[in-house]
Amino acid sequence: MTDQAYDANDIVFRCNGKASGKMRADMDVRLEHPMKESFQLATDEGKFHGGDGSAPLPLALFVGGLTGCLMTQIRAFGKRMKVPVDDLSVDCEVIWRWTPVDRIYETEPKGFHFDIHLESSAPLEQQVALIEAAKKGCFIEQTLGQKNEIRHRLKTSDGFHEIEA
Amino acid sequence: MTDQAYDANDIVFRCNGKASGKMRADMDVRLEHPMKESFQLATDEGKFHGGDGSAPLPLALFVGGLTGCLMTQIRAFGKRMKVPVDDLSVDCEVIWRWTPVDRIYETEPKGFHFDIHLESSAPLEQQVALIEAAKKGCFIEQTLGQKNEIRHRLKTSDGFHEIEA
Repeated sequence: MTDQAYDANDIVFRCNGKASGKMRADMDVRLEHPMKESFQLATDEGKFHGGDGSAPLPLALFVGGLTGCLMTQIRAFGKRMKVPVDDLSVDCEVIWRWTPVDRIYETEPKGFHFDIHLESSAPLEQQVALIEAAKKGCFIEQTLGQKNEIRHRLKTSDGFHEIEA
Repeated sequence: MTDQAYDANDIVFRCNGKASGKMRADMDVRLEHPMKESFQLATDEGKFHGGDGSAPLPLALFVGGLTGCLMTQIRAFGKRMKVPVDDLSVDCEVIWRWTPVDRIYETEPKGFHFDIHLESSAPLEQQVALIEAAKKGCFIEQTLGQKNEIRHRLKTSDGFHEIEA
């Protein structure tokens, strides 16, 4: 984890996941900065993947988080930009592809699509400006829109072993 | 949404989110292909963002989904690669940054970090090979590792209006 102090405009989340059951992960997800809050979440897999189906699939949490993030931004920025949001419903579709490689497989994303149903008395161009602003304000969408490096370390008896990117 | 048939190796999720409360989103998240399953999820914001704190933050679902996805892959591929996983705990840290722009703000990701605690009788190089395979098999990690295009359409009385990328 990061040792240095966070910047004022950093939003920091930490999560500890513990394996339980056959494929279940019990997670303590914590907002660490700029304020503290914590959430107990879990994921599991269905029978086809050796799990018990006791919690949502990890990808279901991801898709729910992505959709909820855009919806938050539309409502929050609607107030700030004075574009009334009388009602809002969003349909999201995410497609991934998996490719068998020996006994395992590799994965890649194939498409992301949002259909937005916004009830507003504002003219279309203001509604469009609101959606454009919400896209830029949505942390998850901005994350998906760029190539991110993810650092992995494996704990060993001699300390952490860095996994090559 | 996509009209064409899905490919055999496509994993397809759809989500309908409905605005409720002040900032809450109630979501029906459905796995559509290759099998059907559905999950009821919700997100809300805290008081600082005008919400009621009635459900996890969207970013908490995202971080939980990301962590759960990697943990699933480690356990699933451990079996296939014959690397015993006696116990597993994962610490994840995600940092985003927000930058004020007029009355609203823009966002960007700043860092992703996993510390993996794996109990296994396998030698280190096999454990490392397992983590490397799990990274490639984790749908969410592979999504974050590339620049994705996200399509948005706004429903109007004349049909869907495409939002420029």
